[in-house]
Amino acid sequence: MYKTHNNGELRMAHVGQEVTLSGWVQTIRDKGFMMWIDLRDRFGITQLMFNEEVSDPALMETARQCGREFVIKATGKVIERSSKSDKIATGDVEIQVTSFEILNASKVPPFTIEDESDGGDEIRMKYRYLDMRRNPVREKIIFRSNMALEIRKHLIGQNFVEVETPCLIKSTPEGARDFVVPSRMNPGQFYALPQSPQTFKQILMVAGMEKYFQIVKCFRDEDLRADRQPEFTQIDCEMAFVTQDDILNTFESLTKHLFKSILDIDLPDFPRMFYDDAMKLYGSDKPDTRFGMEFVELTDVAKDKGFVVFDNAELIVGICAEGQVEKYSNKDIKKLTEWMQRPQIGAKGLIYVKCNADGSFKSSVDKFFDADALKNWAEKFGAKPGDIMFILAGEEEKTRKQLNELRLEMGERMGLRDPKVFKPMWVVDFPLLEWDEETNRFHAMHHPFTSPKKEQMESMLNGDHETMKGLRADAYDLVINGVEIGGGSIRIHDRALQEKNFKLLGFTPEEAEEQFGFLMGAFEYGAPPHGGIAFGFDRLCAVMNGVTSIRDFIAFPKNNQGRDTMIDAPSAIHDEQYEELYLKSTASEEVVS
Amino acid sequence: MYKTHNNGELRMAHVGQEVTLSGWVQTIRDKGFMMWIDLRDRFGITQLMFNEEVSDPALMETARQCGREFVIKATGKVIERSSKSDKIATGDVEIQVTSFEILNASKVPPFTIEDESDGGDEIRMKYRYLDMRRNPVREKIIFRSNMALEIRKHLIGQNFVEVETPCLIKSTPEGARDFVVPSRMNPGQFYALPQSPQTFKQILMVAGMEKYFQIVKCFRDEDLRADRQPEFTQIDCEMAFVTQDDILNTFESLTKHLFKSILDIDLPDFPRMFYDDAMKLYGSDKPDTRFGMEFVELTDVAKDKGFVVFDNAELIVGICAEGQVEKYSNKDIKKLTEWMQRPQIGAKGLIYVKCNADGSFKSSVDKFFDADALKNWAEKFGAKPGDIMFILAGEEEKTRKQLNELRLEMGERMGLRDPKVFKPMWVVDFPLLEWDEETNRFHAMHHPFTSPKKEQMESMLNGDHETMKGLRADAYDLVINGVEIGGGSIRIHDRALQEKNFKLLGFTPEEAEEQFGFLMGAFEYGAPPHGGIAFGFDRLCAVMNGVTSIRDFIAFPKNNQGRDTMIDAPSAIHDEQYEELYLKSTASEEVVS
Repeated sequence: MYKTHNNGELRMAHVGQEVTLSGWVQTIRDKGFMMWIDLRDRFGITQLMFNEEVSDPALMETARQCGREFVIKATGKVIERSSKSDKIATGDVEIQVTSFEILNASKVPPFTIEDESDGGDEIRMKYRYLDMRRNPVREKIIFRSNMALEIRKHLIGQNFVEVETPCLIKSTPEGARDFVVPSRMNPGQFYALPQSPQTFKQILMVAGMEKYFQIVKCFRDEDLRADRQPEFTQIDCEMAFVTQDDILNTFESLTKHLFKSILDIDLPDFPRMFYDDAMKLYGSDKPDTRFGMEFVELTDVAKDKGFVVFDNAELIVGICAEGQVEKYSNKDIKKLTEWMQRPQIGAKGLIYVKCNADGSFKSSVDKFFDADALKNWAEKFGAKPGDIMFILAGEEEKTRKQLNELRLEMGERMGLRDPKVFKPMWVVDFPLLEWDEETNRFHAMHHPFTSPKKEQMESMLNGDHETMKGLRADAYDLVINGVEIGGGSIRIHDRALQEKNFKLLGFTPEEAEEQFGFLMGAFEYGAPPHGGIAFGFDRLCAVMNGVTSIRDFIAFPKNNQGRDTMIDAPSAIHDEQYEELYLKSTASEEVVS
Repeated sequence: MYKTHNNGELRMAHVGQEVTLSGWVQTIRDKGFMMWIDLRDRFGITQLMFNEEVSDPALMETARQCGREFVIKATGKVIERSSKSDKIATGDVEIQVTSFEILNASKVPPFTIEDESDGGDEIRMKYRYLDMRRNPVREKIIFRSNMALEIRKHLIGQNFVEVETPCLIKSTPEGARDFVVPSRMNPGQFYALPQSPQTFKQILMVAGMEKYFQIVKCFRDEDLRADRQPEFTQIDCEMAFVTQDDILNTFESLTKHLFKSILDIDLPDFPRMFYDDAMKLYGSDKPDTRFGMEFVELTDVAKDKGFVVFDNAELIVGICAEGQVEKYSNKDIKKLTEWMQRPQIGAKGLIYVKCNADGSFKSSVDKFFDADALKNWAEKFGAKPGDIMFILAGEEEKTRKQLNELRLEMGERMGLRDPKVFKPMWVVDFPLLEWDEETNRFHAMHHPFTSPKKEQMESMLNGDHETMKGLRADAYDLVINGVEIGGGSIRIHDRALQEKNFKLLGFTPEEAEEQFGFLMGAFEYGAPPHGGIAFGFDRLCAVMNGVTSIRDFIAFPKNNQGRDTMIDAPSAIHDEQYEELYLKSTASEEVVS
């Protein structure tokens, strides 16, 4: 018996009881005649007390051998503390130790096991088992576990079935790069790890499962960034006999339930915004709507007035930063302009119009626009004295994207992106296809299984090239605070339409058949109308905690080179493994050359 | 709106309501002036009715175009049936259809969508989406989903945390063969898919998570059998600060909870049997205890009596088959003997002693043993008139294994293995190490992380070769009805002991460090005592349903060649993929040669 109680549990009501506790040594204070050890486990901290007057000297001798992070077991009586602490839940009591055992020693950890650690990212990952002893990391892992259970309870309560789809599937060149797994039993052939269970969940709809979900690992062999991992987890769902509204309502209700049950936050109904409007108002299909600062277009009033930058522009558009006049000297604006000109954003310049307190204007285009013109702009922006308007001009799509970056940056600087405020929204009616000028082909905006809107199916089957560009889909994203939590669509459930889509996406009929013949075949045996959605689970956890990095919600994340530095993977394999798999490495030659 | 109700929902209380239903056409009966369609979805069947007198003729015309498995949507009024059916839950009512739409057509399925299908295994797997429309398959998938939720609710209710461990880990030659995944970003290096999250869950204990579980995919590249899949699912658990009893109690309580909540079966406390006793009484470490027929040893009374087979034997042991005298003619016994002599079992012969109704004996060893001797045997066996004793003799270990096969076969023939009866038990105190005469080294009986019993740790560190053979572990298996559901052990949490174990298992210090250095390193930073267990989830589902094959509890299983015949995986990959992964295939040459 190692524990009668955990270390977060004891209160005044336990005084007088004999208890046994186990855990890690958090701190030791030694006054010679008395000693205290803060004993930590997953549940909290309890103070152990040793007193020369009542404790066995040998006991104190043993206790003195302990260092930080030693694992110990102690038995003793719960007594009331003379000086209570309100910093820990057990602060009213302590244990007068009568028996003490060191279960395991510990070297001195390379960083302190405190909420704020002195360990950098690299050393934290290598010693993840020490990092995870820290409250902020452990709490995130427990948060994730609780989230997963709530999701499952809620969806199964709504008649969803959790179905495990296979991990060893088939490689398809569409989308991101697959991780592949050589098959020993089928020489020269490979499995692929799923980028998502997309085709399987559609097959489950054909199979009559009607409401499927799965919290599932997915894999993408992409170059990594801070919020991307080669393996990540999706809340993956599919429903049959549903419209877009049914799906949105179901997953809006799930999201509200999670915020309520886990964070005790009541979310109002989620606004639904058309993709086109989101692009127009925010220059982004995942707008952060915790703040306004919506785009205002000036093209019709500012173009062809003799200012060459505007005259050559496809679009003139800006935002109004409220009450920022005092905060932006010319030097500050210059810095901001340079920030916009960095290659990551690539703006050519940044026009400003300051609305001074006295009602006058000061702008970088005073030469071209008089006070009346600027006043007209200010009216369009709803700008008041004290505000600054920032304006960009140029090619439409690029300019919107650049202004989106500026808007987010200004929101950040102005403290409008409060991590404790949550603004979820649906962005709906995405285009079906995206024309790529470079490769001269269409790309699927969502994925190749997305259906055009019902009323456009005929024109998709028979329309011309321009018609295809205008196709809209029942495709939707859930966005919270500017983060895309996930998205989905109503799918094609008809073979002819699916074939047409593959053709538009540049598949030959043979390629389509080879890769997705099983799905198109299934469509011929009574496929019901269906659609679905997938949420990024890691990301949802991060957003709900008001942080941007998903890494601490993953117990054992990989670094930017795709390495697990703790176990040191990936690693070389043995020659026999190559032989069994009918493979040869060309790495050494190529890497050297 | 495709549905106001599902097809299992409507009752007399709904009569008079207008409803909309969608689903698949199960059957059509057409009497000309009237027509009925049985409409099926996941939840049941509802009868649609068309009547020339009230229905629009165009409606019936459309309905007549339907075949089996067409997907349709129908609206109409719920009416009371004139001839009710008690075969379906909705049998009191039918829908008088007023609006009808074919949502999708279906080709004629290659097998019927009925509880008993005419599809063989191969075609069922290729058209799994049709197979899964059948009740018995769908119900097993839903059973699994409900099980998973109950497991999670129960364990999280006990303060367990579900932690997702990584899928892309490091290849280790210990144990079964790994599936490996070439890393594009780390040329010449590979990830491995986990055979189990063993080292990660131990790391989580060092990390202070205390109670971990995960329902997790595991992977083994082994040659496949009926109850083995290259990917399978484990209920994987680990606890810190626990003894073997703590773990057994926790997972006995989980198992009881599952039987109660899912099957409404109350299981009594699980008996705990020593490994040595299980081998002695049943010749197996996973005895089927739904029936007795325990082994009885005759070595001391039957050896050295002049019968050479016995005299040369290390062990003489048998079972008593109650009341089987009448059922086994000499010819039957000859057949049974031949069954025992098949290479799969390899017995040299089979001795029988029939206890006749009149109290006399008839045996195949009458020449060597008189009635008194046989009577003495019968007393040892507790054999009554009407029973047969079957006896084997030979090398101890082999003979027990052979007799185990005979016991199971006789239990089967005698109807003692009722799939509706459940006999769970713990087998405990497995040996730590197994000496392999061929390779002249020890193997880990459970796995290399298993601890010897606490009182044997010293002798493991310092003992001689013979001492090692006698080491016992706190290692345990849960067995239900002769099926090993899972097992676990108390682990080593001390670096020196772990190093010693690796040495005994034939690792050089360098190999141990390269493969498991991270774990042994973690042990030096305050590793708590810990242990765990893992259940085969697929197998637990199968056993609870009284079936032996795990395949129908897996939505998309692979066949014995490791192929998914529906999606046709694995498959060839493109040359560019080889190049990106720094690999060359040697398959064509070797396969041809």
